[in-house]
Amino acid sequence: MSNDYRPMWEELGLDLDAHDALLNVLNQGYGDIYLSQQNRPETMAYFDFVMSEVHGLRIRELLDEKDKGRKIVGSYCVFVPEEIVLAADATLVGLCSGADFALEEVENWLPRNTCALIKSSFGFKLGKVCPYLECADMIVGENTCDGKKKAYETFSSLVENLYVMDLPQVKSDPGKTLLAAEFDRFRQAMEHLTGKPITAESLKYGIETVNAKRAALHRLYALRHADPAPISGLDALLANQVSFYDNPARFTESVHKICDELESRIAEKKGVFPEKTPRILVSGCPQAVPNWKLHHIVETSGAVIVGEESCVGERGTRNLTDDTGGTPEEMMEAIVDRYFQINCAIFTPNGDRLDHIRQMAADYKADAVIHYSLQFCQPYLMESLPVENTLKNEGLPALRIETDYSMQDAGQLKTRIEAFIEQLR
Amino acid sequence: MSNDYRPMWEELGLDLDAHDALLNVLNQGYGDIYLSQQNRPETMAYFDFVMSEVHGLRIRELLDEKDKGRKIVGSYCVFVPEEIVLAADATLVGLCSGADFALEEVENWLPRNTCALIKSSFGFKLGKVCPYLECADMIVGENTCDGKKKAYETFSSLVENLYVMDLPQVKSDPGKTLLAAEFDRFRQAMEHLTGKPITAESLKYGIETVNAKRAALHRLYALRHADPAPISGLDALLANQVSFYDNPARFTESVHKICDELESRIAEKKGVFPEKTPRILVSGCPQAVPNWKLHHIVETSGAVIVGEESCVGERGTRNLTDDTGGTPEEMMEAIVDRYFQINCAIFTPNGDRLDHIRQMAADYKADAVIHYSLQFCQPYLMESLPVENTLKNEGLPALRIETDYSMQDAGQLKTRIEAFIEQLR
Repeated sequence: MSNDYRPMWEELGLDLDAHDALLNVLNQGYGDIYLSQQNRPETMAYFDFVMSEVHGLRIRELLDEKDKGRKIVGSYCVFVPEEIVLAADATLVGLCSGADFALEEVENWLPRNTCALIKSSFGFKLGKVCPYLECADMIVGENTCDGKKKAYETFSSLVENLYVMDLPQVKSDPGKTLLAAEFDRFRQAMEHLTGKPITAESLKYGIETVNAKRAALHRLYALRHADPAPISGLDALLANQVSFYDNPARFTESVHKICDELESRIAEKKGVFPEKTPRILVSGCPQAVPNWKLHHIVETSGAVIVGEESCVGERGTRNLTDDTGGTPEEMMEAIVDRYFQINCAIFTPNGDRLDHIRQMAADYKADAVIHYSLQFCQPYLMESLPVENTLKNEGLPALRIETDYSMQDAGQLKTRIEAFIEQLR
Repeated sequence: MSNDYRPMWEELGLDLDAHDALLNVLNQGYGDIYLSQQNRPETMAYFDFVMSEVHGLRIRELLDEKDKGRKIVGSYCVFVPEEIVLAADATLVGLCSGADFALEEVENWLPRNTCALIKSSFGFKLGKVCPYLECADMIVGENTCDGKKKAYETFSSLVENLYVMDLPQVKSDPGKTLLAAEFDRFRQAMEHLTGKPITAESLKYGIETVNAKRAALHRLYALRHADPAPISGLDALLANQVSFYDNPARFTESVHKICDELESRIAEKKGVFPEKTPRILVSGCPQAVPNWKLHHIVETSGAVIVGEESCVGERGTRNLTDDTGGTPEEMMEAIVDRYFQINCAIFTPNGDRLDHIRQMAADYKADAVIHYSLQFCQPYLMESLPVENTLKNEGLPALRIETDYSMQDAGQLKTRIEAFIEQLR
């Protein structure tokens, strides 16, 4: 990134030295992991550019929006409804939580046995290296897992503008009532933040914009059904990751351009890996930028990842919001309906997630499933055992991985994953 | 325990050899830890008897109740309202979860990084050594922490009669509405289980019975304010533990007898330890039978435990249920009001818990607080840091302990606790 951004970062209160170090690691990692891939779609150049400017141009754009009076809302979870944020004429961005930073300082604030994602969100704040966080006018937390729910209590002393959304734990009628009440409270909070009333027209715009983004990703997902795989799991993961902070309309257009190219590739039987390469479905915890560890290991071990049953993947994007409502009430109800379907492991029971894994494995012609859990993520760890056992009993090979953001276990993981893939041939 | 119980245990499906081994360890531990104490109140003899018959006489009583058509309900949490269970003419008992058992088998069912309490509940089932569980007509789980919430999904395949109660995460109006709906669902489930309608009269009986039990414990707690301490923390903890499975009326009477003796002791300035012995308040995770580890270490290291801010302690028992309502609806509302005040760490925010710790420290004239967390118990671990920091900033020494049910860390804990107590002199 150009040095021209340094005054901007300084003004945001970033620790420039620490931030330089972070960007160096990020650029190095991106070069090693992404740019070293063979047979990439040419249209991925857009995402290479996005990543090269991840803390630069996109932050400049957000600050330009702020200069014009637009508000920036940051979040850590797919339960925060972007439709409502857009309807209030604000911008939603995902906040940094995909890399270890300032770990020693983090452990003054959080128990050692906290998952890497939560530790990361604290590390980026304590280390002053997340420009998205620093330019956000409001940060939206949510009572998903115990870890996040309780961590936000502490996080509120580190940031000024934290709003916490309550979530149900059961997909019951009272659970849905709770979600509806919370989304309505959020609607009011957004109106209060921006000073702009949410109308039928603006909600419709929000729904259509987000649906268009999701539909583009759905098109991308469907193209990944092909063998040979026209795009690597790494590149598809990146598209999912970038969806959390890019401009929605530009992102949608860019994904469609990739899809156009992938359609040609499929017609020509051109893939990133040879036909019959073992096909892996990944299921489990979200993988935020720059958490490319599992995908990199799998795709340098003789297999290709064809789908992600993950918040950064189909769990987060699979359902569109019904856009046929005419009144704000009808549209709010449609939004509640859509988000209430998310098969997050915080729900009990959560059997629909297993059904979705089965469905994805069939649709993507996966040869196996790797269940990916972050260490200390109780909800997904708890589901990982029954998921593995059920899939194996049904004849689908499954491997449970429990890891964090460090590279200390990379060698061990590679050995396990190579052995697993070897069995699939 | 007499061998006469062996046919009873066999009929319950217990693994007799494993159960013998468990009872041997339990009796040995009770002898080493409890019976070795000096200056115990004579009236603790009742609890010695209860413990010597913990899997014998009490189980015989429960089976006799069952023979007469009464139902037995088992639970793992203070959110299960005993008032409603009693009102339906059933008996509530706490289920075994205070010791490691069949750990290797447990880890086929639960992630390694699960707290000892949850692992224990599985271990007692898998090892077939909990007669309470085996004689329960219904087991009530509850969505408190992620660990328990998700573990019940798996537990339901191990037991036939699991009922899961949803709980709110926020003390908001919608949260209270959810609790009220769940308690009403539980009321109906109890009526269905026993076939007996819950009436104003039976609810009043339930409320009065449970209030009487709590009031007896409140009397005991108040007597622990005295210096020298008239009763050890270990013995008071035992009373709290036994409250979960003894006959309520007999338990209440027994606690009052202890209190009568303690009043005489206080008048005579007679204590279990000398006056001015450092006084410790314990706060944190519940300690179920036979988890006496922390109390034993503290009270053999030169200090006395004067209070427990715990589910097995004041958090579980502190508030009475308003018994002035005339209709079932009014009484159910009073029950909801009472349980909604429990300051469990699953709630966010949970600042009232800190206020309660402060209040208890003042009331009990505590010289220090030890925060006790089970490893991997995210809610209490997350609260432990701010609790420790706040108390220290207010001038009250505080020590955070993170442990499990094994004795592997006992030496290390003793060293830390001795050093901590040394600073209090």
